Amino acid sequence: MTFHTFTEQNLRQFTERVFLKMGCPEADAQLAADVLLKSDLRGIDSHGVARLSGYVRLWEKERINATPNVRVVHETPTTATVDGDAGLGLVVAPFAMKIAIEKAKIYGSGWVAVKNSNHFGIAGYHALMAVEQDMIGVSMTNASPLVAPTYSNERLLGTNPMCYAFPAGKYPPVVVDMATAAAANGKLEIAQRADLPVPEGWVQDKDGNSSTNPHQLKDGGSLLPLGSDKDHGSHKGYGLSATVDILSAVLSGANYGPWVPPFVAFLEPSANPVGEGLGHFFGAMRIDGFRPAEDFKNHLDNWIERFQSASTIDPDKKVIIPGEPEYAFEQERKVKGIPIIDVVVNDLNELAKKLGITGL
Amino acid sequence: MTFHTFTEQNLRQFTERVFLKMGCPEADAQLAADVLLKSDLRGIDSHGVARLSGYVRLWEKERINATPNVRVVHETPTTATVDGDAGLGLVVAPFAMKIAIEKAKIYGSGWVAVKNSNHFGIAGYHALMAVEQDMIGVSMTNASPLVAPTYSNERLLGTNPMCYAFPAGKYPPVVVDMATAAAANGKLEIAQRADLPVPEGWVQDKDGNSSTNPHQLKDGGSLLPLGSDKDHGSHKGYGLSATVDILSAVLSGANYGPWVPPFVAFLEPSANPVGEGLGHFFGAMRIDGFRPAEDFKNHLDNWIERFQSASTIDPDKKVIIPGEPEYAFEQERKVKGIPIIDVVVNDLNELAKKLGITGL
Repeated sequence: MTFHTFTEQNLRQFTERVFLKMGCPEADAQLAADVLLKSDLRGIDSHGVARLSGYVRLWEKERINATPNVRVVHETPTTATVDGDAGLGLVVAPFAMKIAIEKAKIYGSGWVAVKNSNHFGIAGYHALMAVEQDMIGVSMTNASPLVAPTYSNERLLGTNPMCYAFPAGKYPPVVVDMATAAAANGKLEIAQRADLPVPEGWVQDKDGNSSTNPHQLKDGGSLLPLGSDKDHGSHKGYGLSATVDILSAVLSGANYGPWVPPFVAFLEPSANPVGEGLGHFFGAMRIDGFRPAEDFKNHLDNWIERFQSASTIDPDKKVIIPGEPEYAFEQERKVKGIPIIDVVVNDLNELAKKLGITGL
Repeated sequence: MTFHTFTEQNLRQFTERVFLKMGCPEADAQLAADVLLKSDLRGIDSHGVARLSGYVRLWEKERINATPNVRVVHETPTTATVDGDAGLGLVVAPFAMKIAIEKAKIYGSGWVAVKNSNHFGIAGYHALMAVEQDMIGVSMTNASPLVAPTYSNERLLGTNPMCYAFPAGKYPPVVVDMATAAAANGKLEIAQRADLPVPEGWVQDKDGNSSTNPHQLKDGGSLLPLGSDKDHGSHKGYGLSATVDILSAVLSGANYGPWVPPFVAFLEPSANPVGEGLGHFFGAMRIDGFRPAEDFKNHLDNWIERFQSASTIDPDKKVIIPGEPEYAFEQERKVKGIPIIDVVVNDLNELAKKLGITGL
């Protein structure tokens, strides 16, 4: 595998050019690029510019609307439902999170469900918007069906991530941002590209037999929920994924379960949808709605220090604070640039050629 | 193992007698008994009357206050912090959830963090209070440190359950109520009593070696987070447990991590606490703050039917809807009575003798 390293600025400008070419308004193109770049900066390479041509293909199929009329369709003082008008999730999600934050400023908390949206990038980006305002941020989304619930061999759920983000004092925010499957699809894709086996417990074949072959997923197989099997709590991973699906879609009026439109443009969405697009769910709670923010941050710093200094099994490995590795990546990549694997670079340059814009 | 079957009424009256003897006001004794009975009715035998003598021992040690002044110490329109005044969690938690529900009635949602409390029974009881009002209920608590974070052999977290409950239409509520450890401590206790091995991935010994011996926990070992090991996502179970700990305790001013006071009375709480008692976190969101409740319930019914009819690997096993088995237990036990294992019956009758009340 060969990597090419690009500056943040270079990748950002390229990404903006792509979204502008799709017809996005300038502010939307900048925002969408910011969400994708945040993912690359934080080391979550599967959710950054590597997905750009996927978004473009959905737009070509008219499944993404570059000029959506994103709007609130239902609300109370602290809750709202947003219709994303088939826009980029990268734009719709920050719109919705801003509403949650504005409500929290006035009433202490704000909660927004979103329908008729598309893939929103990394959940952490949106939750961190709340953290910047001294709030706790919550962010989740449903996704293309790839995961089978416990006892089943049918793909009925997405890798449905949930994210909780908390502001600390002298440390980076604590960010729990996780797929509710045993392994994120991005990890499978890496193993597929390298043609390497995956650990038992990530994947089953089409008949529900445990498998270490990452290609099973293309052959009717499915991902397994966090916990992998019943003995190890896969019903909990399934329950968490169900929670994300219900909050994101049953609550908002989006598609849920096997009806969620696939991210890949070569698969058609269900001919009989149960809702509109895919769904997200966001929340913001003011820390000082519970206790003074400084007290919270001091105690979270103490929490972090206690866990960082925990006794470990292998002296070379310390306990990781959720969000710490991503923060470290971000500091490093802002300075040293972002390495992109050559297949992605080639894909992006072909995309540029097709769109008639300057490549990387 | 021998079981004795008691009517709900019989067990309820006995439980009330115990709490009254502790000096609880009558309404509190009834409420605390209701929470414990709900657990026995729903088949979660580890969290019902089996814990009664544990609560009494904490009261004898003056770690539970039978006549607490439970009160709101901080609030905004939709958030609050409650000081449980060292009361029974079984009483403090419904008090806090009621506040969340009242706030949601007015503003759409309500969120309450609790400090200075004790063990609150099953998370599901409290979340279901919101469901009865056509709201989504959220309930979580931290707990005695038994779980080691990924890479560590130190017990720094409780089995920290989280619960999300949703009202359906023609079906029972969907209730995701789960410990964030690979296995709840109750399951370990069953294996310990029967002296049977547990599956690999539940427990490690004091040096962090994987073990199938359930007694390792008494020998410096620890429970493992949901996911069991890094390859299978134990960092996600750890992240969820951390989320529960931060929302329940860092936000409220309770003890967190290894400072959480142990449930067992023979272990002393930390001499240098970082907060007061243990902590909970509750939420309520009005369904009709997002869409008409009937629409939500119709779609949740459709969700349930789709998952119930999913293709399964073993024709004898169907996909289970979260909360379905507990609901079935409740219907059955209300009619046929509640089976209690003989060791628990003996323990309760000895408790009765000690307290000078009528036994079972």
